[in-house]
Amino acid sequence: MAVPVWSVDPRTGKQREQVGHEATAADVDAAVRAAAAALPALADRSARAGLLRGAAALLEEHADEVVAAADAETALGTGRLGGELARTAFQLRTFADVVDEGAYLDVIIDHADPDAKPIPRPDLRRYKVPLGVVAVYAASNFPLAFSVPGGDTASALAAGCPVVVKAHPDHPATSALCARLLQRAAVEAGLPAGTVGLVFGFEAGTELVRHPLVSAAGFTGSVAGGRALFDAAAARPRPIPFHGELGSLNPVVVTEAAAAERAEQIAAGLTASFTLGVGQFCTKPGLVLVPAGGPGDRLVAELARAAGEVAPGVLLDGRMRENFLKGAAARAALPGVEVPVAAGDGGGLTVRPGVVVAEAAAFDEPGAYDLLLDECFGPLVVVVRYDGADALESVLGRLPGNLTAAAHIGADEAAAAAGLLARLSALAGRVLVDGWPTGVAVTAAQQHGGPYPATTSTSTSVGATAIERWLRPVAYQDVPEAALPPELQESNPLGLPRRVS
Amino acid sequence: MAVPVWSVDPRTGKQREQVGHEATAADVDAAVRAAAAALPALADRSARAGLLRGAAALLEEHADEVVAAADAETALGTGRLGGELARTAFQLRTFADVVDEGAYLDVIIDHADPDAKPIPRPDLRRYKVPLGVVAVYAASNFPLAFSVPGGDTASALAAGCPVVVKAHPDHPATSALCARLLQRAAVEAGLPAGTVGLVFGFEAGTELVRHPLVSAAGFTGSVAGGRALFDAAAARPRPIPFHGELGSLNPVVVTEAAAAERAEQIAAGLTASFTLGVGQFCTKPGLVLVPAGGPGDRLVAELARAAGEVAPGVLLDGRMRENFLKGAAARAALPGVEVPVAAGDGGGLTVRPGVVVAEAAAFDEPGAYDLLLDECFGPLVVVVRYDGADALESVLGRLPGNLTAAAHIGADEAAAAAGLLARLSALAGRVLVDGWPTGVAVTAAQQHGGPYPATTSTSTSVGATAIERWLRPVAYQDVPEAALPPELQESNPLGLPRRVS
Repeated sequence: MAVPVWSVDPRTGKQREQVGHEATAADVDAAVRAAAAALPALADRSARAGLLRGAAALLEEHADEVVAAADAETALGTGRLGGELARTAFQLRTFADVVDEGAYLDVIIDHADPDAKPIPRPDLRRYKVPLGVVAVYAASNFPLAFSVPGGDTASALAAGCPVVVKAHPDHPATSALCARLLQRAAVEAGLPAGTVGLVFGFEAGTELVRHPLVSAAGFTGSVAGGRALFDAAAARPRPIPFHGELGSLNPVVVTEAAAAERAEQIAAGLTASFTLGVGQFCTKPGLVLVPAGGPGDRLVAELARAAGEVAPGVLLDGRMRENFLKGAAARAALPGVEVPVAAGDGGGLTVRPGVVVAEAAAFDEPGAYDLLLDECFGPLVVVVRYDGADALESVLGRLPGNLTAAAHIGADEAAAAAGLLARLSALAGRVLVDGWPTGVAVTAAQQHGGPYPATTSTSTSVGATAIERWLRPVAYQDVPEAALPPELQESNPLGLPRRVS
Repeated sequence: MAVPVWSVDPRTGKQREQVGHEATAADVDAAVRAAAAALPALADRSARAGLLRGAAALLEEHADEVVAAADAETALGTGRLGGELARTAFQLRTFADVVDEGAYLDVIIDHADPDAKPIPRPDLRRYKVPLGVVAVYAASNFPLAFSVPGGDTASALAAGCPVVVKAHPDHPATSALCARLLQRAAVEAGLPAGTVGLVFGFEAGTELVRHPLVSAAGFTGSVAGGRALFDAAAARPRPIPFHGELGSLNPVVVTEAAAAERAEQIAAGLTASFTLGVGQFCTKPGLVLVPAGGPGDRLVAELARAAGEVAPGVLLDGRMRENFLKGAAARAALPGVEVPVAAGDGGGLTVRPGVVVAEAAAFDEPGAYDLLLDECFGPLVVVVRYDGADALESVLGRLPGNLTAAAHIGADEAAAAAGLLARLSALAGRVLVDGWPTGVAVTAAQQHGGPYPATTSTSTSVGATAIERWLRPVAYQDVPEAALPPELQESNPLGLPRRVS
């Protein structure tokens, strides 16, 4: 029996429309085979750049429709979603530029050297080729930028890899709409519609990662879901790379000088950041280390005041709402934890943000307060008061890996903070000073990935280098010019950047 | 009870000397902790370059002793081992140059842009940092170049990662000697001796990959052993990257024109390549596709003649000898397979090389001849006769991933061969024309890695880019100059190559 897929309005909990059906194993197989059949056509770099730019233009052309669908399914608001659409289109165009530039091919040419020591050297020419079909697991919290037309899809297509997306159940209508736009862009660029496939359903997601013709996967979501798929990818007869972004606390350290200088400003920035998008960012600052003493007291008081004034918001779905309310209550119930702002039911299907405060000394008791170091998805922030460097380290030393870590430092502390930043860099892929982690710029130097469980690999899922995840090097040895791919020919007919020995 | 570790002479099967004991869990823990303690000191790039160059010089200074130990344990011969030592020293110095040059840090700087669209852009600066302690699993067949002082160790140290090597049981005395030289080089470079640790024993290898302070692993060896360790690495609470080189058939395709032009020359080159080092190369050409018809007949006849004249040789250990004799006999016993040269006992503990010949049509019967597509470690080559492009594809389509794939083509076939090379590039990490895969040059463009089971990742274990396996990116956002690591400071005090937007 075909299982229907419904679009649900999180503001009411009511079904909006039936979008389609969950994919059977045969459906998944068909989508993967169609994608695999598109691989040769994707070797055409200008067609790929055309697809990416065409998809950006179509998204913008249909912005009203896409944003309306996404808002109806996610309650994230049309303002935020309009921004996300602009960012998604920008990201698609950025990867088109990456394709055109060609540096990602990483061409290295070592000419033969018959006099080389200890032995003569052959002619070797290396570049990168696409891995094959990429499975993309869409996120709940970014229905565009980390979903069907998002960074995993854009970077995989840029690399020359066809994509099959497993849609997130929180926004099936948006997913179907975006997939149609991407397929149209593919066809308009002269590529098969199967270049981008879409499947619905939990079982389909498992089938997908196990399919023999799938060669890599990208994932954004929870630790439990991501780890299960990572394990399935590793257990295959032919294991495949699984680039998963799973979970992150995003710790923030406020120094004593920073708190003394600008407790109010930091509290305001923190409040805006941890409640942004109703706290549903992978980069939400979930743990803030605040110095014990007067300036820290002021910061916490101001944080409580500001957070208490934030309007309640609707979470992405009912299960998340339930998990958030349970998770916030469990943290608040820990002995010795203060609750200046209690998270809770905000009326209707909304939730109110919360602030809980613990002492660093609590972490000396092994395991008792580990719940505070476990990401709570939604608008909750855990403040830990520390008294001196040793107390700070006792908490940092217990932290799992993170996407980001931030320090708020005093005006005269830049040089003195180098050690703290080095310490934070061991815990995270991005280190910020005097800023908040919830914005993730799409640039060449971006790193959106960090030690496990932030990511399951050493890669980034945002920024130009995200393309590296879908490529592998191939070296050609002593191959005559006429038999070489154009990327490696001595005459460099494609005008690629390259390193030549 | 401590389990003794013996050095064994494969020429006699007799124990030579007791080298030490198998490491207990406590021994492994101590080695890993000593390595982890060395991590901060390894941040000094000039100390690392000094360690690598010092290790090269010490290896050369003690060349006679090292080569004698290795020959006594492996029977690979002092000529070959002298060459391997020179290559190993060259490799260590190459990675010292890589450290000095600093391109591996992959510094990317994006300046802030308040006018950027769709949103203002922060200042972002990215470089790469070492992952932490690396576990290295040494190979049997290269007691220097892929063992204690080999490419995994050299590239990990170059990246700034301390190393704990799990020695291969076939050359414990060589391993212990090389570890002492590396430790001396570390101390002379001002680094802790624990920078390079050494453990013996199968159980120790499992303990090592599971140790919480181990952050990555490199492996060269069998599919069964490598897959078991890969699975253990993936199953950890915190999974770690496992870069394993497991097994490879290294297919060679001879075109009809090539066979017609130079059957004798190809047969001679193939014989030298598949029997080099008694067939114990990861890059041994194990499967050769030869055209049906007269020129191919000549090639096979000449191959049989040349291979029949190769002197018997001693394999690395008794278990390998047994496996080789069994494996060669099982292949020869397949129905319809011809055996122009029977591999077998060569007297004493030697083995004679073998050639078996099958028809491509055999592979149309699903599974029946899969044994011929399974690597047989030692001096055996499987020749498959193909009649036309479809028959060739029917075999290529059944091949697993490989380190290398080669084509021998006619003098006028360069342009026509581009399609064949593209096909082979889907099967391997290195594609050669008119050459043999058994030499692996240490250069920037080298790729020694290919689709599974050739490797468990998309990386290379030889060449300058092998360093990438032990690094992860970290981005600094809006960090004041004085708080930045020197690698990322605007003034570029280290003079590093970098990309600046």
